[in-house]
Amino acid sequence: MNTGLPLFGNVPHRVADLSPETIAFGRREIELAEHEMPGLMAIRERHAADRPLAGARITGSLHMTIQTAVLIETLLDLGAEVRWASCNIYSTQDHAAAAVVAGRGGDAKDLRGPAVFAWKGETLTEYWWCTAQAFDWPDGRGPNLILDDGGDATLLVHKGVECERAGAVPAPESAENEELAVICSLLAAATEERPGWYREGSLLFPAINVNDSVTKSKFDNVYGIRHSLVDGIMRGTDVMLSGKLAVVLGYGEVGKGAAQSLAGQKCRIVVTEVDPICALQALMDGYQVVRLEDVVDEADIFVTTTGNVRVIGVEHMRRMKRNAIVGNVGHFDNEIDMAGLAAEPGIRRQNIKPQVDAWIFADGRQILVLSEGRLLNLGNATGHPSFVMSSSFANQVLAQLELHQRREDYALGVHVLPKHLDEEVARLHLDKLGARLTRLTPEQSDYIDVPVDGPYKPDTYRY
Amino acid sequence: MNTGLPLFGNVPHRVADLSPETIAFGRREIELAEHEMPGLMAIRERHAADRPLAGARITGSLHMTIQTAVLIETLLDLGAEVRWASCNIYSTQDHAAAAVVAGRGGDAKDLRGPAVFAWKGETLTEYWWCTAQAFDWPDGRGPNLILDDGGDATLLVHKGVECERAGAVPAPESAENEELAVICSLLAAATEERPGWYREGSLLFPAINVNDSVTKSKFDNVYGIRHSLVDGIMRGTDVMLSGKLAVVLGYGEVGKGAAQSLAGQKCRIVVTEVDPICALQALMDGYQVVRLEDVVDEADIFVTTTGNVRVIGVEHMRRMKRNAIVGNVGHFDNEIDMAGLAAEPGIRRQNIKPQVDAWIFADGRQILVLSEGRLLNLGNATGHPSFVMSSSFANQVLAQLELHQRREDYALGVHVLPKHLDEEVARLHLDKLGARLTRLTPEQSDYIDVPVDGPYKPDTYRY
Amino acid sequence: MNTGLPLFGNVPHRVADLSPETIAFGRREIELAEHEMPGLMAIRERHAADRPLAGARITGSLHMTIQTAVLIETLLDLGAEVRWASCNIYSTQDHAAAAVVAGRGGDAKDLRGPAVFAWKGETLTEYWWCTAQAFDWPDGRGPNLILDDGGDATLLVHKGVECERAGAVPAPESAENEELAVICSLLAAATEERPGWYREGSLLFPAINVNDSVTKSKFDNVYGIRHSLVDGIMRGTDVMLSGKLAVVLGYGEVGKGAAQSLAGQKCRIVVTEVDPICALQALMDGYQVVRLEDVVDEADIFVTTTGNVRVIGVEHMRRMKRNAIVGNVGHFDNEIDMAGLAAEPGIRRQNIKPQVDAWIFADGRQILVLSEGRLLNLGNATGHPSFVMSSSFANQVLAQLELHQRREDYALGVHVLPKHLDEEVARLHLDKLGARLTRLTPEQSDYIDVPVDGPYKPDTYRY
Amino acid sequence: MNTGLPLFGNVPHRVADLSPETIAFGRREIELAEHEMPGLMAIRERHAADRPLAGARITGSLHMTIQTAVLIETLLDLGAEVRWASCNIYSTQDHAAAAVVAGRGGDAKDLRGPAVFAWKGETLTEYWWCTAQAFDWPDGRGPNLILDDGGDATLLVHKGVECERAGAVPAPESAENEELAVICSLLAAATEERPGWYREGSLLFPAINVNDSVTKSKFDNVYGIRHSLVDGIMRGTDVMLSGKLAVVLGYGEVGKGAAQSLAGQKCRIVVTEVDPICALQALMDGYQVVRLEDVVDEADIFVTTTGNVRVIGVEHMRRMKRNAIVGNVGHFDNEIDMAGLAAEPGIRRQNIKPQVDAWIFADGRQILVLSEGRLLNLGNATGHPSFVMSSSFANQVLAQLELHQRREDYALGVHVLPKHLDEEVARLHLDKLGARLTRLTPEQSDYIDVPVDGPYKPDTYRY
Repeated sequence: MNTGLPLFGNVPHRVADLSPETIAFGRREIELAEHEMPGLMAIRERHAADRPLAGARITGSLHMTIQTAVLIETLLDLGAEVRWASCNIYSTQDHAAAAVVAGRGGDAKDLRGPAVFAWKGETLTEYWWCTAQAFDWPDGRGPNLILDDGGDATLLVHKGVECERAGAVPAPESAENEELAVICSLLAAATEERPGWYREGSLLFPAINVNDSVTKSKFDNVYGIRHSLVDGIMRGTDVMLSGKLAVVLGYGEVGKGAAQSLAGQKCRIVVTEVDPICALQALMDGYQVVRLEDVVDEADIFVTTTGNVRVIGVEHMRRMKRNAIVGNVGHFDNEIDMAGLAAEPGIRRQNIKPQVDAWIFADGRQILVLSEGRLLNLGNATGHPSFVMSSSFANQVLAQLELHQRREDYALGVHVLPKHLDEEVARLHLDKLGARLTRLTPEQSDYIDVPVDGPYKPDTYRY
Repeated sequence: MNTGLPLFGNVPHRVADLSPETIAFGRREIELAEHEMPGLMAIRERHAADRPLAGARITGSLHMTIQTAVLIETLLDLGAEVRWASCNIYSTQDHAAAAVVAGRGGDAKDLRGPAVFAWKGETLTEYWWCTAQAFDWPDGRGPNLILDDGGDATLLVHKGVECERAGAVPAPESAENEELAVICSLLAAATEERPGWYREGSLLFPAINVNDSVTKSKFDNVYGIRHSLVDGIMRGTDVMLSGKLAVVLGYGEVGKGAAQSLAGQKCRIVVTEVDPICALQALMDGYQVVRLEDVVDEADIFVTTTGNVRVIGVEHMRRMKRNAIVGNVGHFDNEIDMAGLAAEPGIRRQNIKPQVDAWIFADGRQILVLSEGRLLNLGNATGHPSFVMSSSFANQVLAQLELHQRREDYALGVHVLPKHLDEEVARLHLDKLGARLTRLTPEQSDYIDVPVDGPYKPDTYRY
Repeated sequence: MNTGLPLFGNVPHRVADLSPETIAFGRREIELAEHEMPGLMAIRERHAADRPLAGARITGSLHMTIQTAVLIETLLDLGAEVRWASCNIYSTQDHAAAAVVAGRGGDAKDLRGPAVFAWKGETLTEYWWCTAQAFDWPDGRGPNLILDDGGDATLLVHKGVECERAGAVPAPESAENEELAVICSLLAAATEERPGWYREGSLLFPAINVNDSVTKSKFDNVYGIRHSLVDGIMRGTDVMLSGKLAVVLGYGEVGKGAAQSLAGQKCRIVVTEVDPICALQALMDGYQVVRLEDVVDEADIFVTTTGNVRVIGVEHMRRMKRNAIVGNVGHFDNEIDMAGLAAEPGIRRQNIKPQVDAWIFADGRQILVLSEGRLLNLGNATGHPSFVMSSSFANQVLAQLELHQRREDYALGVHVLPKHLDEEVARLHLDKLGARLTRLTPEQSDYIDVPVDGPYKPDTYRY
Repeated sequence: MNTGLPLFGNVPHRVADLSPETIAFGRREIELAEHEMPGLMAIRERHAADRPLAGARITGSLHMTIQTAVLIETLLDLGAEVRWASCNIYSTQDHAAAAVVAGRGGDAKDLRGPAVFAWKGETLTEYWWCTAQAFDWPDGRGPNLILDDGGDATLLVHKGVECERAGAVPAPESAENEELAVICSLLAAATEERPGWYREGSLLFPAINVNDSVTKSKFDNVYGIRHSLVDGIMRGTDVMLSGKLAVVLGYGEVGKGAAQSLAGQKCRIVVTEVDPICALQALMDGYQVVRLEDVVDEADIFVTTTGNVRVIGVEHMRRMKRNAIVGNVGHFDNEIDMAGLAAEPGIRRQNIKPQVDAWIFADGRQILVLSEGRLLNLGNATGHPSFVMSSSFANQVLAQLELHQRREDYALGVHVLPKHLDEEVARLHLDKLGARLTRLTPEQSDYIDVPVDGPYKPDTYRY
């Protein structure tokens, strides 16, 4: 570890900029976001008095955005202690991080907020250092709850345990990729400094995967991307989407949202899929299903959404049209083979502006890659909007509450949020949009054998 | 029972019209439908030689349409014996029934097809008589498989067993509604004539509910309705939908398809929902969520899709605008309170044309009710189109094959079709639409830990 | 002329069926249509007392549908005398014709309506005979106004005058096509029987081409087709449109409506165009612009909308896929080269059902042609819906009123309806859809220099 | 005039930042934009040799964006001399201005480009000073062509002539509004320094209003807004649009584009209109037509598109919901009564970030106003994308060419670009999107009496 930062130094926080202007800007945007996050605000209001998360020490690993700031402050209002890192090197909004560290009522001279370790443009080494800090409570204790969006916090813990069981941390040189090498370095340093650190406390724990909640998987993943994909492409490139040929790689939830996003701007859309069911859904939604190699030299825009590796290879990028736009909204940066691209003989990278690069092949052809193949909606825009994140984050808060208040009901392992809470999350978001729910009559409740107050559907229902 | 038809009379078939013209018309339409049902045709081709359903005696209860004719003849090609009734009094296409009874290669003078009992416009008594016939093989044997779309065939069996256990068939007068009274009458007659009839053979059996297949629930229910709702309203009323205010009651799969159908014609759409998750989906799709009573006096069109009872009551219909159109695509005819409407003091019904009635209240106001509150897409149009039914029916055929070939793997009870077969159904429909699936590379298969040939998703995946 | 019908025989009317049932069915549908035609009803109401068309003798040549029945009865209410023929051999709805002939308050035994000459399925000879009848008032007078939708009535008059000037009617054998041969025959017979017949009365006249009204060209042509194209294809073929590849030939008003219609059902749509501006509009709407020959062997559906000749030639039809659907909504039946198709060596036509034919090439390949290449929305369905026809027909009525009341303001030639009347037509249709117009403030009226009551736009405005 | 800048000082240019980084950033974005502006690039290529604008001195008044940079350099390539000002105080992209001033091949130390007077955030006084500079050639000559987007350059000239005719410039204090007061001041100063300045040269001239070209009015105005409205709202507020209630004020070309933009993100949209024809179009597109006062307290987003004054008054803004978003894309900043808002007793303005203000009423309620009521798509985003601007600007270039080469054909007054050039503009943009035009056959050309090479439509055609 050569971040120049101490691994166990009780660093109170590390963010990009704690100037009064940045803090104030962050606070103004947080206040606007609160208005758009009715789920979190309703939970705050409901638990204003009872502080049900008292005693909880939560390690958070989740994009440090304005919306996450509202989440963090909700957890604080419910009584939790919190330490936070981002789960992506580019996704931090620095004014959000600053305002959280300042805290409500605090300012640059009187920081009252929790410990945040995040800034836009971390190196990989810095990134994992930040993640480690989120585990390290001042008194040497670890967290008793983890709120982990991308799985990196959990990965760190599990890698550590794995190493310990193996008796040694693998040498960084032997790691499969750069990221694992960084993790190995960090674990080696940690082991040396504090043996067993990463498994102390409550690190082997039950968890609730809110990705399986309907109000997460069918909302954030679909409607969030519908908003943020065009937002990211427009901010990054200012290119008109109408009439362009766009390839959406993958037609899962994210792919469906991506296609809706581009369709709203009247792209001509084609889809690639591996799964015949999703492929048939794409057809039924009016999109042609192709293989990438069939259209790679005609298409104008390529968006990966698969969660899989190398779905756009360098062999594809070589064939793309001049100024083809290539971006990813499928989480990991290996959907697009950026390593392969960088290794292409004679290739040259010209930065156009932050998060937009032209990659110029030896023959002069060039393509535009957004956010270096990482999440373009976060890198080129501001990610998903507050309203849909309120739905995802209300799931997170209810999950933390469940685990904290009723841990005895949850065995070790990964759980799904109970359906009545999933429905509750949805319910908290209806008023804001002026909706009025219908109420089952006793006759109707009886007829379909469903309680008047729900849950309304079997667990297998697909929505 | 006073159908004038013998209950156990070995009636070979009963359809509306076996004229050469009707048979030929049915055959021409069946041949066109075959072209649109690639799933069924692929199964026929695959099993042309091995006849894997040999020995199966299948009782079918499913709308006797052109598409069902292709299903029946697929079952026959696979070696099954078949007896068939419709599952709706209005849904039979008489030329389809005729062509099936005539059989391929047969004609009006040389009937070679299976036993079908179905015609458009059956009375309730006739309907249940038909259902009973589908159980009654000439040699007194019952079926060893049931293909039951709406559950009526199963209901008949279970009601029979229930009565037997209770020691008596309830008096028709004591039944909760007209339909149960008819069933009681039939069971009483059957009991008298052949005690224990309804539980002979293999009537208590394992079943596969294809409604839980993705390629049924997310296809037929959504995309089928998207086609057939506007088709039914247009054929029934010729009314322009653009600019009209339409209320879609329920936003489950059928409701989603209904909204898409009307949106394609630029209706202004509002949705009623009980379930907050579905309500939030409606909002995210751009539709206002209201209570029926808020809009009942402004809306032009009302479509029920809930599967629940009395979602439009007579108290609502009294308040509707002149010539408001009221219809149901949610299966049972009690979504709209037709009994309540008919009981309204001073009300008068004027038939406009088949399946379209003006109901004229005592004060002169009138509303238009389609298909007497039954499935308007079947009553006013021809139901779902062949392509989407090919998906549903390929599920049915694969389910029958599973149950017949591997019955030992299926305990008594209701099962779901295994996901690899669900994916197989989708795969059979891709070529027809010119789609090319992408194939996982070994690296990708390994990365996401999914076999190259699938199944690609966990059972909980929602699509 | 060998229709067996006298040319100048004072035939009072000729329709298919004047049975009480047909008349009553027509009347019921007319009453429903009235409710959907607020423009015509408002004009009736406004002029209930003053009968401003008293003295007008109107020859109508326009599809004899239910909507036209409401138009005719509006003209009658305004005081006109009317004689009517359809402008298409297939477009008559026989119950509409019957109800008009019976007249309001009349019945099969007491016919009180005007002279209508139209039935579904006329021969060409019968068609032109009908058109001639619409000119022939009992007392030998001709019309003083013509309401001519397709231009056939005008064609007949002008051909007659042309012949007279040429000194002779051309021999039918010398005519360019079958239709002109029929017209020549009729004119020859008319000339023999009543020299100069076709130019008596007010036959050379000013006319208002309502096709140039915005509330016609941008409404009926776009929104009418949006409704009636899918309606026609669904009734004709029951084929699922979702996922199919559809070629829309032409992207004028009708083509735009056709694309919207198919897009609403999630077809994959490609467009052919000659005009680069319309082509770029198609691209901006998200559709690929292709040449027919590029996609003719992949597409499932072909719809002509151009108003031009032979846009689908037999050389294209030879290459189409089995059961490709070919239809026309662009007015004339020569958009699809039906004559060329019929002349193809070894071709065979199999009628599937009325207005649906399979054409089977010598090699066994077959395609489906709707309505013999004529307007499929009228042949396979019931044409445009009442509401949009109310807009078109309100234009027709206001045009007749203008010409009748202020003929001195209209020189010989073709005129456009004044914009304030065009706006008036729109205004008459807003209440029905619950719309509330905003009213310019005096400040705003002044700022944009537009009268508070309109007209609001310059004549060049494109909407 | 107290800009501190001399009115006739032969200032060579005035932009915000001529640092090497800014110039280079501008140049990179210009090169990307060129790829998206096939119309301008095709014109450059066609006239690479003949320089048909040699001798032209063009005063440009048009948003100084990246796209305009490509326009300016196209004019230069065609041989023109150019002086340029923006037509909006906020719309300048400073890196675009810098790169133009540097010129192709030039850099910060070797400025080779034309005279540009524009920066983001001009005061009104600075704005009109910039406009005046664009008229003032070094040798005292004026322009012989004006390329005037918003009409401000023309306004300045005409106001000047008006004053001269009146014998005096009105006192600034007597002007109707702040803007006119600034103009009066400037004219007074100019008159003093150089009497008659504003009418020297060719200032009274024929002009071609490219706003009347189809490829401008139906492209830029519709499709440009479709892109840039959501872009501006998202960049400005990050608010999720899905499910929100949005009021689009006006349903002309801009309003139609605005509705499409919001509909693509699944807003619930209602429309206000004065013109019954546009209102009926909104209904046919599926939008409810309301008066602002009916929805002002429920809606979340308000977008003005009318080109009229005070369509949102302070009396409306008082009633809006907390954090309602108010913005304008209809050109002038008086659509929203910003003056009235600022004059509201007790109101307070809090700047959230550039071009986003919260206006907080005395009672604590607040609304968000974008870009101070000026064009939000330019203020909060980067305006219309290159591709659609290529269409608008190709019109501008062809218009300049027409006027320069064939001035004798154009009388004093405002003209429309000939249709064959309008079609040419469209044609230049098809290849980029992979389109293939169909070519009329001689038979077809003859049948519809249209030349094979166009023009294809009458001047009255509405597209």
